[in-house]
Amino acid sequence: MKQVTLADTQAIAIGAGVLGTGGGGSTYLNRLRLENELRRQGGAVPIIQADDVPDDALVCAVGGMGAPTVSNEKLQAGHEIMTAVRALEDHLRRKIYAIVIGEIGGGNALGPMVAALQLGLPVVDGDGMGRAFPELQMDTFMIYGVAPAPFILADAHDNVAIFTRIGSAKQAEEFARSLTIEMGGSAALVMPVMTGAELKTTVIRDTVSLAKRIGETVLECRARSIEPAETIAALCQGKVLFSGKIIDVERRTVAGFARGRLKISAFHNFECQLEIDFQNENLIARENGKVRCAVPDLITLVTLDDGEPIGTESLRYGLRVAVLALPAPKELKTPEALAVVGPRAFGYDVDFCPLPGDLL
Amino acid sequence: MKQVTLADTQAIAIGAGVLGTGGGGSTYLNRLRLENELRRQGGAVPIIQADDVPDDALVCAVGGMGAPTVSNEKLQAGHEIMTAVRALEDHLRRKIYAIVIGEIGGGNALGPMVAALQLGLPVVDGDGMGRAFPELQMDTFMIYGVAPAPFILADAHDNVAIFTRIGSAKQAEEFARSLTIEMGGSAALVMPVMTGAELKTTVIRDTVSLAKRIGETVLECRARSIEPAETIAALCQGKVLFSGKIIDVERRTVAGFARGRLKISAFHNFECQLEIDFQNENLIARENGKVRCAVPDLITLVTLDDGEPIGTESLRYGLRVAVLALPAPKELKTPEALAVVGPRAFGYDVDFCPLPGDLL
Repeated sequence: MKQVTLADTQAIAIGAGVLGTGGGGSTYLNRLRLENELRRQGGAVPIIQADDVPDDALVCAVGGMGAPTVSNEKLQAGHEIMTAVRALEDHLRRKIYAIVIGEIGGGNALGPMVAALQLGLPVVDGDGMGRAFPELQMDTFMIYGVAPAPFILADAHDNVAIFTRIGSAKQAEEFARSLTIEMGGSAALVMPVMTGAELKTTVIRDTVSLAKRIGETVLECRARSIEPAETIAALCQGKVLFSGKIIDVERRTVAGFARGRLKISAFHNFECQLEIDFQNENLIARENGKVRCAVPDLITLVTLDDGEPIGTESLRYGLRVAVLALPAPKELKTPEALAVVGPRAFGYDVDFCPLPGDLL
Repeated sequence: MKQVTLADTQAIAIGAGVLGTGGGGSTYLNRLRLENELRRQGGAVPIIQADDVPDDALVCAVGGMGAPTVSNEKLQAGHEIMTAVRALEDHLRRKIYAIVIGEIGGGNALGPMVAALQLGLPVVDGDGMGRAFPELQMDTFMIYGVAPAPFILADAHDNVAIFTRIGSAKQAEEFARSLTIEMGGSAALVMPVMTGAELKTTVIRDTVSLAKRIGETVLECRARSIEPAETIAALCQGKVLFSGKIIDVERRTVAGFARGRLKISAFHNFECQLEIDFQNENLIARENGKVRCAVPDLITLVTLDDGEPIGTESLRYGLRVAVLALPAPKELKTPEALAVVGPRAFGYDVDFCPLPGDLL
């Protein structure tokens, strides 16, 4: 994959939605923003491999921080990430070589491409999560040793804060969350800043390509009038966990997150129910009380008929859905990673169990 | 005044307490810190006049942010302000010429002197409030046009945030307050950064000298066993508003502030009561419902017998006190200033009325 053009945006948006596990922000809004920017510039987003980045060059991961329930209604000014990257360059007196996608899930796959076009920079094919996660310490960059400082927050009113010293990535999450709330519930985040050498040892590779491939698969199924869930599952070496109708959604925007729980009942057996807890992203799925899938493995809802991924901000009673369980990338299943993104890191008293047949 | 030595700390602490109008943080803790630092360095804090600062040199105002109820219990690490000033110098690639006291009231008069000793810098004889105020947009620097960015917050764990772009001083207050709360309720603040030229047109001059003179007056009264309230009032062209016993204190630490209300009843007429509202600092005094004194004029409680100023965090039932009403410096009583620090800026539906006989 060498570039992203207007012909690719729909597929990438669908694939990022599937990888978003309900979070990462709306792909709809950021897809519109990306298409506008591509039309305005008449070009394409250059995509490079992590190995193309010189060891001593500087790159930075970028994305949007906040609750998807908020960022769906409080629209971006559109230049927040660019402003934040420019502030980083001014602070360091160094140029950034390429933009890295902080999380490939949801709208956060697309927002960095808009910023890259504005900045005239390429985007690395890869990210730090292989999905979306609710908190910012949960990326492979910082799990595997990249320093959390400096990091930058910028809002739609051009307010910019650079955190130049910070005790830990978890501490960064706490400060950034509190400031994001004060910034109105959504903000642009530049974090972490790293060298090419650091990028190469910590990035989850080829996830932009993966998102595109998932989306293309869904589009093919639609063209052939096939329900896409099984095909997506097969492509990602996962499975369809459940099919049914959403019968209950409980959701609050609290402490800067969209938190809640949903219930799905099977079509032909109302007693058979799947319950999913989410915090921006879907975290754990239980069938009649028994854990069927848990973070970091991916739990994604797609509409049954056309495989459109459903963000946690868009859940509602009556939707007919398939629930996908996809194995997380191997980088998220090491002991170091599970300490940060495993079920216990989210307060669930269960150990992580790989999905049956997980080969990743 | 050329310097501050160990012989001056007690007087300055008392004077800063009087000017603190109940806020600005404990003078006790910062006086101990200043005396320790003076003993360790065996020297003195050099004091310079604002007019000694070259027009193109950079200075910065510094202080502690947070609720005095918190900073009395959550002790400082001791180097927060120094860390923040060093971060500013690193960010700007420029040296700071002198330290400016953000607010002369309370412990915030003394903390900057500790930092100046650590940094090897002089302190300007003056400040931006002539008293203490609860919010950071309330200084003459920013009221009279100094930009609020960059500003810096640092905490006891060496976490540092530099706000490089900010819409307004009020917006800065909101971001800084929220981050201060996340930092545990107290933090070091460097704000604003200004040139010598800006300093000279916005600073309230000679307030370190004034604090020292007030304190010396109190100490003389104590030596001669005279109740000091009338003497302080005369020195500051104010008056003793009330004498009596504190009969009620209502105080909560909320939204990062120590907020509340106290009641004092006259010694020989219980029906005659003075009620004071505070938000870190004393804001408005009403005698039987009638406003007797309001911000920006200074309302300070001192113990009746020895003139020791009482912080709002130390108010308690039974204290025998005199209430001083002292006219604010003229820089706080212009229309521009009253829009930011007058009674209406604090939500009181009254116009500011100068104290009877106010010549300032």
